[in-house]
Amino acid sequence: MTTSIMKRLLLISNSTMHGGGYLEHCQDNIKAFLSTTARKAFNSFGYDLDGIHEKENPVDAVRNAEAIFIGGGNTFRLLKTLYDENIVNEIYKQVTQDGVPYMGSSAGSNVATISINTTNDMPIVYPPSFKGIGLVPFNINAHYTEPDANSKHMGETRAQRINQYHEYEDAPPVLGLREGCILHVEGNKATLEGKTNAKLFVRLGKEPVEYEPGSDISFLLNV
Amino acid sequence: MTTSIMKRLLLISNSTMHGGGYLEHCQDNIKAFLSTTARKAFNSFGYDLDGIHEKENPVDAVRNAEAIFIGGGNTFRLLKTLYDENIVNEIYKQVTQDGVPYMGSSAGSNVATISINTTNDMPIVYPPSFKGIGLVPFNINAHYTEPDANSKHMGETRAQRINQYHEYEDAPPVLGLREGCILHVEGNKATLEGKTNAKLFVRLGKEPVEYEPGSDISFLLNV
Ligand SMILES: [Ca+2]
Ligand SMILES: [Ca+2]
Repeated sequence: MTTSIMKRLLLISNSTMHGGGYLEHCQDNIKAFLSTTARKAFNSFGYDLDGIHEKENPVDAVRNAEAIFIGGGNTFRLLKTLYDENIVNEIYKQVTQDGVPYMGSSAGSNVATISINTTNDMPIVYPPSFKGIGLVPFNINAHYTEPDANSKHMGETRAQRINQYHEYEDAPPVLGLREGCILHVEGNKATLEGKTNAKLFVRLGKEPVEYEPGSDISFLLNV
Repeated sequence: MTTSIMKRLLLISNSTMHGGGYLEHCQDNIKAFLSTTARKAFNSFGYDLDGIHEKENPVDAVRNAEAIFIGGGNTFRLLKTLYDENIVNEIYKQVTQDGVPYMGSSAGSNVATISINTTNDMPIVYPPSFKGIGLVPFNINAHYTEPDANSKHMGETRAQRINQYHEYEDAPPVLGLREGCILHVEGNKATLEGKTNAKLFVRLGKEPVEYEPGSDISFLLNV
């Protein structure tokens, strides 16, 4: 995968923080991200937002978008819709060739990556592939969380699930974005923003690494 | 889907209970379930267990099995393996036509149902379908759990996820098996065993219903 010098991404772990409004926790990041290029985006931040479902021709809508935002929801349903509407490749082209800024939160961050293999969502519908838009060559685990030591629940921890994924030798690194965590990509530069650490799982048997807000993790664009 | 009069299933929510050994919490149920038909099953209960992965011909292994047990693991990987080994239909035939008893726990319970749409697992690999073996015409949500009122985590509750699934009008009922919960099917009779309630989600907009151990839920075999 080649990384376009123009590519611009803002990938947000979660749409809502406990006690806060929709995208409130990251509105400064969004304003800064969009200020240079986009006129239309979010009403609440002084931008207009057009829903792609309201468009007669979603492919044209993507082609003409000045910015693309995909929010939360069920990752499987979302990805299936993107395939059904034939806009996976179109979004890829717009972002990597035309420099159209892409913002995603939660499921919208998952579908932006190489694949949805590390979503936390329930597989309520069968998409034609788990391959994502491919804007970054690694996986994101949104809402990343550590196990609750007091829990008697026998389900796997998030880290154990990611390790299961890494039992496949060709599985790429997984960036665990805790709630409040934002990945910001400008061309070949990737930076962590937000208020919380991200945890990077590179491969099985390698200790995961914590990255604080402000960290440069551009090396992940070339894995 | 027709329900065979000979079909015998024991579908267990979880392989391990907090503080207990593997399948310890349900060993009495397993002994009772297997006592009439199976010679081979679990070493620890006085039975032999042959791993299907050790067999040269998995289809023949299924054909010759006196009982089938599928335990936990990742549901996506498990279902993909069943398809790769061409044993989905073979298991279906053995159980519904030959009366071979089927036991599943966790992922092994999920794959036994109509589909894996309500697994809690991470989609670490892409199976050729989400359709399960189809031994019951509804879905199971294993490790079913209520939301922790004290949590600040913004992820959906299990009930919200199941409701998302039920936004698809053709989605069948979902039986939430809490840890310690067991579904026992003998032909056209389905009974809850174990120590905890199950919670049944029939469809969107209909209040879920609690069923105590001992409840007859045979109506679910004809949904
Ligand atoms: Ca364009
Ligand atoms: Ca047979």
